[in-house]
Amino acid sequence: MLDLIELRRDLHRHPELGFTEFRTASKVVGLLRQFGYEVIYGQDAMEPSSVRGLPEKEVLEAAYERALRDGADPAIAAHMKGGYTAVVGTLRGVQEGPTVAFRFDMDALPITESTETRHVPQAEGFRSLYEGHMHACAHDGHTTIGLGLAERLSDRQFAGTVKLIFQPAEEGVRGAYAMVNKGMLDDVDTLFCQHLGCDVPLGEIHGSSAGFLASTKLEARFRGVASHAGSSPEKGNNALLGAATALLNIQSLPRFSTGETRINVGVLEGGTAANIIPETARMIIETRSVDEQTNEELERRVRNIIAHSAGMHELEHEVRVIGGAIPIVCSPELAEMTAEEAQHIEGFVNQKAMGQTSSLGSEDASYMIRRVQELGGKGTYMIIGCDLPAPHHHPEFDIQEEVLPRSVELLERLARRTLR
Amino acid sequence: MLDLIELRRDLHRHPELGFTEFRTASKVVGLLRQFGYEVIYGQDAMEPSSVRGLPEKEVLEAAYERALRDGADPAIAAHMKGGYTAVVGTLRGVQEGPTVAFRFDMDALPITESTETRHVPQAEGFRSLYEGHMHACAHDGHTTIGLGLAERLSDRQFAGTVKLIFQPAEEGVRGAYAMVNKGMLDDVDTLFCQHLGCDVPLGEIHGSSAGFLASTKLEARFRGVASHAGSSPEKGNNALLGAATALLNIQSLPRFSTGETRINVGVLEGGTAANIIPETARMIIETRSVDEQTNEELERRVRNIIAHSAGMHELEHEVRVIGGAIPIVCSPELAEMTAEEAQHIEGFVNQKAMGQTSSLGSEDASYMIRRVQELGGKGTYMIIGCDLPAPHHHPEFDIQEEVLPRSVELLERLARRTLR
Amino acid sequence: MLDLIELRRDLHRHPELGFTEFRTASKVVGLLRQFGYEVIYGQDAMEPSSVRGLPEKEVLEAAYERALRDGADPAIAAHMKGGYTAVVGTLRGVQEGPTVAFRFDMDALPITESTETRHVPQAEGFRSLYEGHMHACAHDGHTTIGLGLAERLSDRQFAGTVKLIFQPAEEGVRGAYAMVNKGMLDDVDTLFCQHLGCDVPLGEIHGSSAGFLASTKLEARFRGVASHAGSSPEKGNNALLGAATALLNIQSLPRFSTGETRINVGVLEGGTAANIIPETARMIIETRSVDEQTNEELERRVRNIIAHSAGMHELEHEVRVIGGAIPIVCSPELAEMTAEEAQHIEGFVNQKAMGQTSSLGSEDASYMIRRVQELGGKGTYMIIGCDLPAPHHHPEFDIQEEVLPRSVELLERLARRTLR
Amino acid sequence: MLDLIELRRDLHRHPELGFTEFRTASKVVGLLRQFGYEVIYGQDAMEPSSVRGLPEKEVLEAAYERALRDGADPAIAAHMKGGYTAVVGTLRGVQEGPTVAFRFDMDALPITESTETRHVPQAEGFRSLYEGHMHACAHDGHTTIGLGLAERLSDRQFAGTVKLIFQPAEEGVRGAYAMVNKGMLDDVDTLFCQHLGCDVPLGEIHGSSAGFLASTKLEARFRGVASHAGSSPEKGNNALLGAATALLNIQSLPRFSTGETRINVGVLEGGTAANIIPETARMIIETRSVDEQTNEELERRVRNIIAHSAGMHELEHEVRVIGGAIPIVCSPELAEMTAEEAQHIEGFVNQKAMGQTSSLGSEDASYMIRRVQELGGKGTYMIIGCDLPAPHHHPEFDIQEEVLPRSVELLERLARRTLR
Repeated sequence: MLDLIELRRDLHRHPELGFTEFRTASKVVGLLRQFGYEVIYGQDAMEPSSVRGLPEKEVLEAAYERALRDGADPAIAAHMKGGYTAVVGTLRGVQEGPTVAFRFDMDALPITESTETRHVPQAEGFRSLYEGHMHACAHDGHTTIGLGLAERLSDRQFAGTVKLIFQPAEEGVRGAYAMVNKGMLDDVDTLFCQHLGCDVPLGEIHGSSAGFLASTKLEARFRGVASHAGSSPEKGNNALLGAATALLNIQSLPRFSTGETRINVGVLEGGTAANIIPETARMIIETRSVDEQTNEELERRVRNIIAHSAGMHELEHEVRVIGGAIPIVCSPELAEMTAEEAQHIEGFVNQKAMGQTSSLGSEDASYMIRRVQELGGKGTYMIIGCDLPAPHHHPEFDIQEEVLPRSVELLERLARRTLR
Repeated sequence: MLDLIELRRDLHRHPELGFTEFRTASKVVGLLRQFGYEVIYGQDAMEPSSVRGLPEKEVLEAAYERALRDGADPAIAAHMKGGYTAVVGTLRGVQEGPTVAFRFDMDALPITESTETRHVPQAEGFRSLYEGHMHACAHDGHTTIGLGLAERLSDRQFAGTVKLIFQPAEEGVRGAYAMVNKGMLDDVDTLFCQHLGCDVPLGEIHGSSAGFLASTKLEARFRGVASHAGSSPEKGNNALLGAATALLNIQSLPRFSTGETRINVGVLEGGTAANIIPETARMIIETRSVDEQTNEELERRVRNIIAHSAGMHELEHEVRVIGGAIPIVCSPELAEMTAEEAQHIEGFVNQKAMGQTSSLGSEDASYMIRRVQELGGKGTYMIIGCDLPAPHHHPEFDIQEEVLPRSVELLERLARRTLR
Repeated sequence: MLDLIELRRDLHRHPELGFTEFRTASKVVGLLRQFGYEVIYGQDAMEPSSVRGLPEKEVLEAAYERALRDGADPAIAAHMKGGYTAVVGTLRGVQEGPTVAFRFDMDALPITESTETRHVPQAEGFRSLYEGHMHACAHDGHTTIGLGLAERLSDRQFAGTVKLIFQPAEEGVRGAYAMVNKGMLDDVDTLFCQHLGCDVPLGEIHGSSAGFLASTKLEARFRGVASHAGSSPEKGNNALLGAATALLNIQSLPRFSTGETRINVGVLEGGTAANIIPETARMIIETRSVDEQTNEELERRVRNIIAHSAGMHELEHEVRVIGGAIPIVCSPELAEMTAEEAQHIEGFVNQKAMGQTSSLGSEDASYMIRRVQELGGKGTYMIIGCDLPAPHHHPEFDIQEEVLPRSVELLERLARRTLR
Repeated sequence: MLDLIELRRDLHRHPELGFTEFRTASKVVGLLRQFGYEVIYGQDAMEPSSVRGLPEKEVLEAAYERALRDGADPAIAAHMKGGYTAVVGTLRGVQEGPTVAFRFDMDALPITESTETRHVPQAEGFRSLYEGHMHACAHDGHTTIGLGLAERLSDRQFAGTVKLIFQPAEEGVRGAYAMVNKGMLDDVDTLFCQHLGCDVPLGEIHGSSAGFLASTKLEARFRGVASHAGSSPEKGNNALLGAATALLNIQSLPRFSTGETRINVGVLEGGTAANIIPETARMIIETRSVDEQTNEELERRVRNIIAHSAGMHELEHEVRVIGGAIPIVCSPELAEMTAEEAQHIEGFVNQKAMGQTSSLGSEDASYMIRRVQELGGKGTYMIIGCDLPAPHHHPEFDIQEEVLPRSVELLERLARRTLR
């Protein structure tokens, strides 16, 4: 039997950023195979042309080397090179029946973990081994739950198929899209997604959640012409003038009467030296909206502003999507089923079918849920409560590990009920 | 014989802005005919499609009515309706010969004349009758000199043709272009232009001048979509956002290593009310440069910025030229001839062939001079010194009237020498 | 007995913009006196230092002259000169008791009324006599109802005091504030405000309304230094650069997580000529929010942006409030009382205590209601349904006149019930 | 005897960026001491508080380690730690007399040297050992000349004192200022500065140069408050909004009628992630002008714009000077003396006292020359011609090494003539 605590702490000690989960995903592949699952991963589980927000080549390579040094199975990891860290394990039950899927995310955050002694991972010796990398959003817990579930279901005593989806790069809402576009969700009848924490206290569970925003993350690049600022300023095409103009106009996009929106130019970088007309600039922009159509309209307007800011200064430009999400509409049957099953588990003292999660922002499990629903299936995104010593994405974030076994039990019950 | 002082004071009392010189031009037509000149005027002397910066229809009509009330000959003025106030008088000499032309400008400025008693027009009773209109750039004097010259040459004792060109709307560098494009300069072999004052003291004369800048004046209009700022801001297309963006980017155009340039957005107006997304905006922009090519490049860049500022906010836009000038390159032979002839006239104590006039800015006589030169002729722009109590375009600007007869004499000598 | 239809049509024919309701208010004063009310008006009813968004002096004077020509009583109107057109009529009942007040607005809009024959005022011959002025928001009806109510209550058969408040300049949310600051509401125990139309159909009545936004309208003025754009651009301090910078940064103010906000720079004007560095600029800005604190924070940020945009270009600046409103929180007792009383009146077939009015934007009756509530009284803002051929503020806006007598009856019932 | 070619090639192979000339300066200290000079260096030769544009600590430390690995004398280099790489060698002659100084710059550029076989350093095997670092402005030659001169004068056969000034960080016009403020120039009566190349052909020499611009390089930092862009955008203070506003307004600074100016925002960087309101931003700005007063005015305006852009968004900010220069006015006596002495040297076939160098931009030797002149001395900046295969700062830049010995000879003659 897996020791869930030990497994979670091992993952916590080795956090890996989005699309570099080489060690984590290799371990997932190894364990799923051990439990009898048929496993596909790497480019078989992700459409390469749909990958959003892939890190630079050097970053991928350094992370890959680190993973090997930290014990990743080289035979497995080799197929993940270049950032293809998605894993899908499938197990057919002893009888025919529908397909139920569970989705888990594996990536960590670019945060340096606290060294305060009150911080449990520090006190208990499983703090991140890598400065600047930390599991500060519970994905170590999520992956652990997924593997615990895999083990429990390895008896194949169900009527249908279980599909366990381990997703890279949820942070930045990047990784789900390429898995959906590879068809990973196309045979799924029922999909359960979950998150630990989210301002819901230990013992409480929400069978669904609402309030996730549609969002798009864009990277824009401007290219002009460098020139000496003293001797021939007029020969330059100033990329920073274009980018600064785009920034101010993007920030000036109007409020929408159709509902809440958000706009942010989160990064702007350009130019090389005091005496050179800036040749290049780069921006990262985020749009959000409560509805997908408005978010698409915001994206359209952002792209138009960028195109004309470039044209104004005779710059070349390109814009690419580096992340995205859509709102989540949970299937009420699954929400209620989740609340019902939780009643049978010690430790869940408060079960709600309908939850409201305004604080999480965006989730790219949304693409998976919608894909299943579009094809006639059902999906939900549950919140499993957990008292947090510090907010998500904080250097002192931590989970209560007692939530892990009961979460595994809940998912097992949902799987068996669905495939009864 | 014309009383030059009285004539100048009559013109001074009745200042008329550019393209509304209905009274002034009617008087010019009448006197030229009286002196035996063949006169063409109105649309016969100006290409309608080339007119730049024409005032609004209501302004033209009100000025026309005022001119009639002030004694303009209705039979003459009727042909000038709509702003066609250019006049050209031609007189053939008793013998064949080349054509010499002189150019005079007739328009006043939108300035309210001083009521200080030290201001001669106030003290002597010929201050402008109209608040907000004033001859503050000596064009009343120029027109007077032109009519004085017309009278002197009415004896036709010369070999060739004299052409007297009375131009509207020099202020804003607007009126010359349409006369050139009507072909008014195409038969001219020698062209003399002149200005009184210009920081040159009484008694001094410059046979030529340098330093006039190429310039373009543009009007840009933006049209978006109005919308209620509270209930549906996203339905508006904000014309002021486009215009403000254009303004900042036009002002950010680079210095040129090719020589001095100037950029100004002189006017910006848009929007109607606090709670309406602004539907329209209007800008007036000016470019200047020491060379014509750079000025054209500036104009090209300004137009590009405007087009993309509009496109950025999905606005319609249009840009039109409302004024323009090019540098003046005087023919040295005429510069020297002018200096030589001035030596024969009492009152001109200091004669220079080559002058430098950096302070005047731009002059649209430049189009006339270049047209003559392009067709193989010669042209110059002389400065006739005159002590000024206040700078050009100042409410206390005034000229010394003794300069008028000697200027007439100088031009007469130049005409007779050229047509000897 | 007043002929309400005739009275409303007379007012409709003579629309007067905010703070220029000289004829309307004079008529109100005259009729209130005729009905036995004690009347205060002019500066006795408005605190001069609190007047927001007063028109220019010339506008006030021209409107005053127009009002006299249109029959305003000169003896009455003389005390309103300068824009002091507020009127308050008070009538004590035969018995002691509390004070109930009703508020009516009198001003028209800067809109040219339709000449379509389907437009009833055109067809019936009471279209506005003045182009560019129109009662397109039912204030002619409101004033008529107020005067009808005044007549009905002139029997003084009630226990307490009736106070009828006729407010200038509701458009632009300008006029109420100065009346509140003059103490006009300080003795009021119960306040009823009302509006006709507002997307509520004829026969329906809402005893209260919600959704009015807090709002501030600001005018900002920038003053720099003019300079010739060709000869000494560096000597100018460019007011339009400051204003354009302010505009882009105001439009870039962030969304608030506390609730919906709105921002608009509705007007920007500056500069005089192509070749002059712009010396002055003027902006009109509007902020809105669902809560007053956020609106105050928006106003604070707008002022800070303006101050620093001015400082950046070494401009002087001033900002003044030209309008404002706060949210309305209706007293539920009055809402219910209104719905109850409406049940007794033929023509009101659908009575709701609680209404939601998201489309109206802002109302400065909000200051009056809050003042009454702050001092322990109660207030409400009711909506009296009325089918509209065109939206509020539209050239074809019109009301159904049958709503006038039943509105008078409703208000009379509320007055008598309150002062029973 | 020093082998000048070998010395120059050794320096060329080991280029060191400004303030990291640890190996170069250590070698200079060692040789000067070997030749009998009294040497001061490190913080004894530079005022720490006046150092402009010092690299980051990590950069300094890495460069220091590299220098030690490349053979820098650790005992000498230790006193240069932290970027204090200035060296001054003084030698008193056998007789009393005035002090003549020569200035040489030692730093390289952040350019990767060409690997083309036509590029002599590549072909001859002395290409830079370090990618991204290159002597592409002849400072390797300058340092070589300085050391050659040191050796020649080691006989002390002159009446007075020779002072050899080896300056760090001329690129970015950074290093001279701290040496001047340490008083290094205060006892100098005559100062000769020189540059190789500068579009002057081999064999030609200019005893002076003109056209260097006053310039200031500034670094501005903005600090706001980060906040989640989705859940609480209003809690952020957006540093990039402030920086983009500063950029557009700095670029909009007016032309000056007093002479040519230049403005450039060469670098802008800020923000961390798509979903975070940007907390910090950094800009690098350059001003230039033909006269120092105008450059100071530009700097003042830039600082004002930055302060108000920060204030507008409630950001903290700081601005520091990271480089600067003033115009150079050469003493004509020294210009003529240089031209005269060059006539005695084979290889200098064309000697001009007065040169015009418009293409170089700015030079911080200007501070040294002015300091000497302020205290009653004389200074000049000569150009020693040299045919260049590619422009200054180009990856294929190179010098003709035959110019080195004749340059040493010229400076020796100037030293001996001055101290005769």
